[in-house]
Amino acid sequence: MADGGKTATGILGRLSGPADLRDLDEDELNQLAAEIRELLIVSVASNGGHLGPNLGVVELGMAIHRVFESPKDRVVWDTGHQSYVHKMLTGRAGEFGALRTEGGLSGYPSRAESEHDWVENSHASTSLSYADGMAKANLLQGKGDHVVAVIGDGALTGGMAWEALNNIAADQDRRLVVIVNDNGRSYTPTVGGLANRLTEIRTNPKYETTLSAIRERLNRTPFGGSQAYEALHAIKKGMKDALAPQGMFEDLGLKYIGPVDGHDRASVERALAQAKKFGGPVLVHVLTTKGQGYDIAVANENDQMHQASPFDRATGEAVTIAPAGWTSVFRDEIVRIADERPDVVGITAAMLYPVGLDAFADKFPDRVFDVGIAEQHAVTSAAGLAMAGMHPVVAVYATFINRAFDQVLLDVALHKCGVTFVLDRAGVTGDDGASHNGMWDMSLLQIVPGLRLAAPRDGFQLRELLREAVDVDDAPTVIRFAKGAVCKDLPAIERIGTFDVLSRDDARDVLVVAVGAFGHLGAEAADLIREAGYGVTVVDPRWSKPFDPALVEMAGDYDLVVTVEDNGRQGGVGMAYTLAVRDADIETPIRVHGIEQEFLDHAKRDVILGRLGLTAQAVADDTLARLGRNSANG
Amino acid sequence: MADGGKTATGILGRLSGPADLRDLDEDELNQLAAEIRELLIVSVASNGGHLGPNLGVVELGMAIHRVFESPKDRVVWDTGHQSYVHKMLTGRAGEFGALRTEGGLSGYPSRAESEHDWVENSHASTSLSYADGMAKANLLQGKGDHVVAVIGDGALTGGMAWEALNNIAADQDRRLVVIVNDNGRSYTPTVGGLANRLTEIRTNPKYETTLSAIRERLNRTPFGGSQAYEALHAIKKGMKDALAPQGMFEDLGLKYIGPVDGHDRASVERALAQAKKFGGPVLVHVLTTKGQGYDIAVANENDQMHQASPFDRATGEAVTIAPAGWTSVFRDEIVRIADERPDVVGITAAMLYPVGLDAFADKFPDRVFDVGIAEQHAVTSAAGLAMAGMHPVVAVYATFINRAFDQVLLDVALHKCGVTFVLDRAGVTGDDGASHNGMWDMSLLQIVPGLRLAAPRDGFQLRELLREAVDVDDAPTVIRFAKGAVCKDLPAIERIGTFDVLSRDDARDVLVVAVGAFGHLGAEAADLIREAGYGVTVVDPRWSKPFDPALVEMAGDYDLVVTVEDNGRQGGVGMAYTLAVRDADIETPIRVHGIEQEFLDHAKRDVILGRLGLTAQAVADDTLARLGRNSANG
Repeated sequence: MADGGKTATGILGRLSGPADLRDLDEDELNQLAAEIRELLIVSVASNGGHLGPNLGVVELGMAIHRVFESPKDRVVWDTGHQSYVHKMLTGRAGEFGALRTEGGLSGYPSRAESEHDWVENSHASTSLSYADGMAKANLLQGKGDHVVAVIGDGALTGGMAWEALNNIAADQDRRLVVIVNDNGRSYTPTVGGLANRLTEIRTNPKYETTLSAIRERLNRTPFGGSQAYEALHAIKKGMKDALAPQGMFEDLGLKYIGPVDGHDRASVERALAQAKKFGGPVLVHVLTTKGQGYDIAVANENDQMHQASPFDRATGEAVTIAPAGWTSVFRDEIVRIADERPDVVGITAAMLYPVGLDAFADKFPDRVFDVGIAEQHAVTSAAGLAMAGMHPVVAVYATFINRAFDQVLLDVALHKCGVTFVLDRAGVTGDDGASHNGMWDMSLLQIVPGLRLAAPRDGFQLRELLREAVDVDDAPTVIRFAKGAVCKDLPAIERIGTFDVLSRDDARDVLVVAVGAFGHLGAEAADLIREAGYGVTVVDPRWSKPFDPALVEMAGDYDLVVTVEDNGRQGGVGMAYTLAVRDADIETPIRVHGIEQEFLDHAKRDVILGRLGLTAQAVADDTLARLGRNSANG
Repeated sequence: MADGGKTATGILGRLSGPADLRDLDEDELNQLAAEIRELLIVSVASNGGHLGPNLGVVELGMAIHRVFESPKDRVVWDTGHQSYVHKMLTGRAGEFGALRTEGGLSGYPSRAESEHDWVENSHASTSLSYADGMAKANLLQGKGDHVVAVIGDGALTGGMAWEALNNIAADQDRRLVVIVNDNGRSYTPTVGGLANRLTEIRTNPKYETTLSAIRERLNRTPFGGSQAYEALHAIKKGMKDALAPQGMFEDLGLKYIGPVDGHDRASVERALAQAKKFGGPVLVHVLTTKGQGYDIAVANENDQMHQASPFDRATGEAVTIAPAGWTSVFRDEIVRIADERPDVVGITAAMLYPVGLDAFADKFPDRVFDVGIAEQHAVTSAAGLAMAGMHPVVAVYATFINRAFDQVLLDVALHKCGVTFVLDRAGVTGDDGASHNGMWDMSLLQIVPGLRLAAPRDGFQLRELLREAVDVDDAPTVIRFAKGAVCKDLPAIERIGTFDVLSRDDARDVLVVAVGAFGHLGAEAADLIREAGYGVTVVDPRWSKPFDPALVEMAGDYDLVVTVEDNGRQGGVGMAYTLAVRDADIETPIRVHGIEQEFLDHAKRDVILGRLGLTAQAVADDTLARLGRNSANG
């Protein structure tokens, strides 16, 4: 990662904080924008990360830090992956060489890194709620500081953002500036009624000329005067229907300013200055282009290099080709199923490609629905589809099912709807930090009555279990798998009911229950335990809810049971198995291995698993220690 | 409940289904409306239930079933408690005598009762998502049937509803009618920017005259013609800013019809007929009055008798005065805390009175925030408040914290925010059916790293634990308690660390860990076990997450541990305790008592607890059987 080690030079290298920005002249600001883009491209080309969104907010980030006084004025970035520019402008440009490495700069805002960072999680549509709370606190404490929230048009499709707008508009005394960073995309083009309206505005031929008129008029007005605001307002009033979705926001009671060309820094600054002077909640609508300034990114139709692996700057091509992943196994199999079953439909929450529904959508465009960043709606509209005779497959990242727990529970499971959830990126994902790890889903879902939960151990099992899942029409089913390369196929020696025996010795010392992607880990740990002279049986439950009754009974035949799963220990598969075994009046000691309930700092997956003791060696060592203790006691 | 046993008579008694409605003349329809109101008042006065909302939708319900053909056209009622009229019109009027009794009519839609019911849960803001799914299915299946969703203005403050509207508007081919039942209230007046706008419309003096004009114009137009739609549209266009929030909905791409006087049945029918003919998604805005037709309900300023206990019809007064409940203990104590601590603020999701924040709001109106039916925003705006130096107390029903799990986890806990959650109506609540039982919260919250969870066993403990909770400023804290009368104070004989010993014998046979409101149950079960000659210690963990280390160690001193909790068994306190004990290398058998993971049909709380084996006798019997087996084996 030698390139990435490059220290920031030029104007960027001299910036100690946002205040320095206010002393730069126009030429220096333009040079700075170029330097920022250069550092973004070099850093992400070296270490991977979010490129497109950050290239799109260079001028916006500069304008925010010139107009507002962070950290006194709090700046909250929705989906923190758009905060690279903010990091560079708040004294961290020199650290971009270590972006997204253990101990290095986080790919998201981080309170440990800077007093300018407030919110470090990455689930979309939350920024306005944080900002609403902060603005309420400012008012109660008699502070005149501003809160600035930057939210994408994609994140506006999330219901939370609407809940917040409804609240923000309710009190005209709060000093809160909502900046809508409208680039027409989340990963893929933003969907829905609002997005259609925004697209009309973006593609309206009058847009450019009107924008010039606004700009001209403003330039003739003393900068920052309330007169300028009036002028802007007067112009827009006349063109309201053609140019702005202000009817929507003004019906909510929110002042609307825009649209503003987000790559014309001076225009953005003027709009923000107006918003700041207004003294109440204001929405500023800024139009940006994802990937701006790097033609290869702009031209990338899939996602404008939204998130990139290390790549060759000249071509934009990834440096190493990723091996076939779990996602691609799902991508292929769901198309085969869709071919056979016209009732099967797909649902994605704004992540068509990342979750692997793109091939399905290409072949059957009417049968795949992108609902926006709206997991709640994804789940409950799936219930509606199921009630009307379809079988929906809702494909989301494991961490995002958290956002629709109530909907899975009451809207799908209570109504016994046949909906299949496909949870990708489950378990420890690593690089993107605490909020991206998919370590909660199996604990959450064990709570849901009637739901069936499967974690495939390899690609073959993923295909088989997916087919079993979509065959269930009276209960929710879940298939969850890890990020990255799919595990090598691990054949069973026997299937008993719904579970697989992977290996079995005559001596019944230890039963290893290896869940999902930890099948290999279980098998390797078993070999190490065998070397110490114990007999081991390794099983894969396949369906971890409900358990096959024979699997529960089996625990009674062994001296010790060891469970391993790529999920939080509390309430997960191991604990559910423990409950089932105890309910069967079996008291065999059970040792539950999984992820400790803690927020994990960003690092490579292997590093984190090693630290957590989730390796074959660590599990074998723990098991042997326990067996030794048992025999010492017994 | 003799009155409630009354069979429906008159026209209502002769209705076999909605089709019969279409044969009635104007006089008969008016008589029918009066009969429905009479039966609503009599039934709820006798058995309790939701009164105000149902009195408000008598004409709307009749109009829907005259214009649309249920069940071919699917009708989905948001927050199913407004479905009584629908039930009467779909052949169930004769069963209202057994409303909300075990085996009798549910207070919510129920698929087991009728083919006209689709959605039987009761969490708000979901109807549009179900409807969107159903309409998508109709389109894929080539069906021309309509889907009708009825949603209140209160439920529109929930983000899910906005996610759905954004999707509904995206496809103009779906036959979907969204009826906004705008009565200006959820429990209390609806809040937020949108509500302010709607209130302007309701109170606009031009409203009545304009409405007459629309009506007149429509009457002169052939009923149902597209001309009528055009006329309506033309009139509204001219008055758009003054009269309707159509800017908002039309910016989303949704056709808007209204506002319509919801108690003028013929007007509502005309609007619905227009909507039906339109052939794409339409929003019909209907203005109704909660409690309409029963003056005592309309005059009730708190909640228009939203949900009533059995009452005296002449006065509206409850027949029996409920004893002081957990809520009232919280209500009093939070005011005392607010007096002492200016940084403490309250947050409610549209349930100021039911959660007991009303006294706080009366005394400090600036410090209590009603955010609408928006649990996600409630939680994340609390994080924002905490980041800016306040200590928010978020008070919601236990079942509703399900809707903000991701926000509790990532927005509050990950950021180590000092936010206190007060969960009311935890455990088995009974009468209102599966979706109201607060049986999930302790399993969900055990998953959250760093969170601290307390379940007080009595009023004294509620006050004490609440104060301990608001003193924590670097982690989320939770206080959860049951519905109804507060438990008699149960003093401890000793406090060890953070937990209480309630009773202790010399012999260390059984350790009973009794959680929260089950303190008394644990104490009584212990007495029964003692009668059989065993020594029992009863402890109340007070803080069920994290456990005091001494409480974990203690398990090693006993032959058997028994845990009892008013929460689902999977992943709850008993299982968390089991994990902690096993991690301390203690293998004492642990028996976990709690609610089985299943959806519970509506019945009285005592009946349900008896069926689940959650009585002192059942717990003692199970314990003695196990002790007998242990000694037989030992």
